[in-house]
Amino acid sequence: MGATEIHLLSAGSALPGPAVDNASLARRFGMDALWEQWVDTFVGTRSRHLAVDLETGEVGTSLADLGEAAARAALSRAGLQAGDVDVIVMATATPDSLMPATVNVIADRLGVDQVPSYQLQSGCSGAVQALDLASQILRSGRHRTALVLGGDVIARFYDLDVDLRSVHPAELVNFVLFGDGAGAAVLRTDPGPGSVAVRSVLTRLVGLGRAPGATLEWFGPANRGGPQERPAATEDYKAIEELVPVMSQEVLHELLDELEWKGDDVDYLLPPQLSGRMTALIGQRLGVGSSQVSCVHRTGNVGNAIVFFQLEQLLQEIGPGERAVVVSIESSKWIKSGLALEAT
Amino acid sequence: MGATEIHLLSAGSALPGPAVDNASLARRFGMDALWEQWVDTFVGTRSRHLAVDLETGEVGTSLADLGEAAARAALSRAGLQAGDVDVIVMATATPDSLMPATVNVIADRLGVDQVPSYQLQSGCSGAVQALDLASQILRSGRHRTALVLGGDVIARFYDLDVDLRSVHPAELVNFVLFGDGAGAAVLRTDPGPGSVAVRSVLTRLVGLGRAPGATLEWFGPANRGGPQERPAATEDYKAIEELVPVMSQEVLHELLDELEWKGDDVDYLLPPQLSGRMTALIGQRLGVGSSQVSCVHRTGNVGNAIVFFQLEQLLQEIGPGERAVVVSIESSKWIKSGLALEAT
Repeated sequence: MGATEIHLLSAGSALPGPAVDNASLARRFGMDALWEQWVDTFVGTRSRHLAVDLETGEVGTSLADLGEAAARAALSRAGLQAGDVDVIVMATATPDSLMPATVNVIADRLGVDQVPSYQLQSGCSGAVQALDLASQILRSGRHRTALVLGGDVIARFYDLDVDLRSVHPAELVNFVLFGDGAGAAVLRTDPGPGSVAVRSVLTRLVGLGRAPGATLEWFGPANRGGPQERPAATEDYKAIEELVPVMSQEVLHELLDELEWKGDDVDYLLPPQLSGRMTALIGQRLGVGSSQVSCVHRTGNVGNAIVFFQLEQLLQEIGPGERAVVVSIESSKWIKSGLALEAT
Repeated sequence: MGATEIHLLSAGSALPGPAVDNASLARRFGMDALWEQWVDTFVGTRSRHLAVDLETGEVGTSLADLGEAAARAALSRAGLQAGDVDVIVMATATPDSLMPATVNVIADRLGVDQVPSYQLQSGCSGAVQALDLASQILRSGRHRTALVLGGDVIARFYDLDVDLRSVHPAELVNFVLFGDGAGAAVLRTDPGPGSVAVRSVLTRLVGLGRAPGATLEWFGPANRGGPQERPAATEDYKAIEELVPVMSQEVLHELLDELEWKGDDVDYLLPPQLSGRMTALIGQRLGVGSSQVSCVHRTGNVGNAIVFFQLEQLLQEIGPGERAVVVSIESSKWIKSGLALEAT
């Protein structure tokens, strides 16, 4: 690793529309109170925000809309302008279109130009992958300030005509687990007021020989209207429940070992945000951090935005000398990722 | 830029099925000899390879298939094994699915594991963006060997039921301009037999206030079967013909200025590969390179794979002390990119 220190200056986030609670979901899809209780108890996600209006079916918000808003919040908190951005990196599983990349649409709206831009196609660990890339780019010495974004809009996969009672459980979870949103952060080679230093970033593919734990198809015009044998989105919940806690522990220990930190040195844990229930279980298992920073119970699993929501909250709470560890696991082809931070 | 030198050790490529010439296309879509001549003359692309069988409509090859084959070729030419790969970066506009990222499926097939992996969502300059990222990652000092891939399979957008005579010109070009394929390259911090040094890489978003020159939509299940007001793929050919030559010249001059090379110092020019005709025009305009390395006339515009096809050819031709410049322009939201190489 180079000698250049990287600092997280700020974070911002954006959510579409009002919160949709489990009661509203149950009402909309004609499900009963028992189902609502099942979601409350076994998923543990109480609400989420959706880019699609559940009554009209209209998609009112794009990923570019959310990313732009989150980026403006992060830049403004860092006291920076569009012209200060030297490189822009974004992560998403659900770009607004295949071309142009959504990152470039957002850059245009922000007034960011004449800089390298990259958009990662990624699952839940995309935020860490993007922060990792931005850190490495800054360390290579050509640039000073990176704007990093992550977000997802799953509205296209939210089929309002579906009968939830007849949906396979592997698809059902998509209606309760996920939410739409975007987040952003500013990384810089100099510290700023209230910034935290990035002590280590880790991302590692560990998919060898493992079946995907989650899939998300995409379809072009040649597929539209034709028979579709495969579901558009699947989750292998057994594999996820089994592997994510183990991998989370491995990420935590690898970061601690590298930095020679002890478990007690960690003041804040930002655990994976699959569902309210899974997050609580993993948090217990990891057993570090007097504070755990989570948002999944109110935002749902917002995919590539999650870590930014957690970082935004962390930056409001963390004090000088305090340390934080972020853990994020991608289950689609299994990526372990994490981040160690320290307020200076 | 850091002091670490980056070397291009090898490149490889893969194409699906047999070459499809313009006569075969004309026959398949019921077009006449005049149309075939029009494609020959005004597009200048003589053949392409397609992942879809024009007779049966069956898609026989995935991006993962092509990427795997190209990567195996590149690794084998570099004399390396999967276990030597420290980081893997891929660029594509058309991933096999949204999750898992195709790069991770390819890594699994190759036996590449326990390394960072990144997949860029990108248009025609994706290969240079991926080579750029890999170079910066290697320069940051943690890794020695990067496997870089790029490719596209547009089969999903290849609607065989279409009546070409009634198709809007903006969509028609998609049936003649593009081809499917993948390419790969190995970058390393040490030179190898026949390797060339990467002297400079440039990628820069220049989309501020510019309308997209090309778009590629994607559709989820909620859109399937519904009314689709927008075409799935469009090209603003007027903007592309106007801007790409100008931007190509800017990229060339910026690279030459940075390295203090003169036009005469460039032995090989690897120009943008939009179509046979555009490539010839741009090559003339740039006016450098006693040799021009092009593949578009036989492969069509293979998107994120193009530059790898050109690099594969270059590595067979370039001799000690010779210099090459790659220029690639993305028209979807306008990215200028280029690469300067020197055989040592």
